[in-house]
Amino acid sequence: MAVYTQVPAEEMAALLTRYGLGALRSAKGIAEGVENSNYLVEAERGRFILTLYEKRVDAGDLPFFLALLDHLADHGLRVPRALRDREGAQIQTVCGRPACLIEFLPGVSLSHPTPRQARAAGEALGRMHVALADFPEQRPNTLGPDAWRALAARCGDAVETIQPGLAARIADELAFLDAHWPHDLPHAVIHGDLFPDNVLMLGDTVSGMIDFYFACTEVRAWDLAVTHSAWAFSADGHDFDSAVGCALVDGYADAFGLGDAERAALPVLARGAALRFTLTRAWDWLNTPADALVTRKDPLAFLRRLDAYAARGAEMFAL
Amino acid sequence: MAVYTQVPAEEMAALLTRYGLGALRSAKGIAEGVENSNYLVEAERGRFILTLYEKRVDAGDLPFFLALLDHLADHGLRVPRALRDREGAQIQTVCGRPACLIEFLPGVSLSHPTPRQARAAGEALGRMHVALADFPEQRPNTLGPDAWRALAARCGDAVETIQPGLAARIADELAFLDAHWPHDLPHAVIHGDLFPDNVLMLGDTVSGMIDFYFACTEVRAWDLAVTHSAWAFSADGHDFDSAVGCALVDGYADAFGLGDAERAALPVLARGAALRFTLTRAWDWLNTPADALVTRKDPLAFLRRLDAYAARGAEMFAL
Repeated sequence: MAVYTQVPAEEMAALLTRYGLGALRSAKGIAEGVENSNYLVEAERGRFILTLYEKRVDAGDLPFFLALLDHLADHGLRVPRALRDREGAQIQTVCGRPACLIEFLPGVSLSHPTPRQARAAGEALGRMHVALADFPEQRPNTLGPDAWRALAARCGDAVETIQPGLAARIADELAFLDAHWPHDLPHAVIHGDLFPDNVLMLGDTVSGMIDFYFACTEVRAWDLAVTHSAWAFSADGHDFDSAVGCALVDGYADAFGLGDAERAALPVLARGAALRFTLTRAWDWLNTPADALVTRKDPLAFLRRLDAYAARGAEMFAL
Repeated sequence: MAVYTQVPAEEMAALLTRYGLGALRSAKGIAEGVENSNYLVEAERGRFILTLYEKRVDAGDLPFFLALLDHLADHGLRVPRALRDREGAQIQTVCGRPACLIEFLPGVSLSHPTPRQARAAGEALGRMHVALADFPEQRPNTLGPDAWRALAARCGDAVETIQPGLAARIADELAFLDAHWPHDLPHAVIHGDLFPDNVLMLGDTVSGMIDFYFACTEVRAWDLAVTHSAWAFSADGHDFDSAVGCALVDGYADAFGLGDAERAALPVLARGAALRFTLTRAWDWLNTPADALVTRKDPLAFLRRLDAYAARGAEMFAL
């Protein structure tokens, strides 16, 4: 959400010549995405995003992410492909960091999606899963169920400073999810983070899906559960919008299909999604100064979702 | 240098309709300028900068800045004018803050300007001063010579934590400038902050001058001295580039003219410029946490310039 590395215009211009894109016309550092530095770059021959990968993205994972984006783009999905320079390279070194020049996609991220827009997002997720059915690569989910217990342990009792009783609440939920997690559902590569931030829309149409840096191999229906938890609530988690949630699931089911077992598992998967973001946000909260370069996201916004799913998950998924 | 206020896409789209610019196509928060929130906004009918004025710009000063930009644009200068909505208003309220929709200008800010580029910047500053000769409004310089002593007092002995001996160095310089400041030189409205950051260039041509939020009435030649201090040194202040400095002054003299008295005063004015940025950066340094949203700028980068001007100012201006 910030520009960590200042790239001199002269270095950016030199980079563009490697791609044969003509002269640099404009470059603005943009506040977007995970902990990368991003520039919106205009060259004579088009507009692009220049991303420098900072600490949070493991450079060893980049080939997986780039292959994933190429695969989805080849299947007609609107995702930002990394360009190849004249020698065919997608990964460059800029200011000492791995960097890619990426297609620019139009569209805006919504703060208050309507049911119609949520349906379009669900359909886009479903089409992504169709395209991923023959994607051959794998990447473990480093923030999946296997990691939650360890992450909770690392947070420790400090979570009590976020909300008294939170440590016990997390422990109880971990025990519940251990007992009920649907390990036998189909696994596939998923986006894993399809928040409204990461879906670009023009009106009611999805014009792009971005930020695939959490993509991994996981229970496929979990991707839908994550998306539901992100879209169907107000940002602070206080308000649930049933029409948005239903539209999202309906759109997905139309585009990809949703088997009975996957549908029945949605309440548990959604509890897992809510716990995952409660835990990662709690960790970031406890380890990010209040006045840091990155805006801290409130872990309680997802604890509220967890409470809602635990109390009335079946009803929320119209089961 | 950050996005302080998140503007929902829905609110941005509603704003565009006030201007008759068609649908919103893209919006990216950009890391630019003083402490404002800025978005690069693409509408069906063009690209614009949406600026929300945060605490550092006094809303009462906005009419002055907007009139200044209109005046310069009317005189053919490439500056970003604030658009008027269908009712003629330039100042809106967005997310509770005063806000303007501003023309987008192409070009990039240079990190390592050449003499040819510095000459173009000097010419652009000179043309700005020509256009400002008949600008009737006034704004006091709240960060001018009259304010430096008070600012030094507010920083106090804490500057010793930046560099031992700095408090005495500042006091000595204040005494020198009190004794030698050329109060009788012509005054006019100036930009006051024409760092390379605030000059957009395409190749060797100035395509825009931006960020007029320090514009004020001041000794006119001080604007050239500020620009010299910003352009003719490496960012850290260690290296002085005589060719860049001379080209800048030559370009200015060609475009606006430079009388003998103004030219002779440049070393003293440049010491004042170096002290001004040493002081404001020291204040920000002492009052900004190291890990804050805004990157702290090193005050010593301008103390080094001050030392250089004090030691060999006449020579640096070829006097």
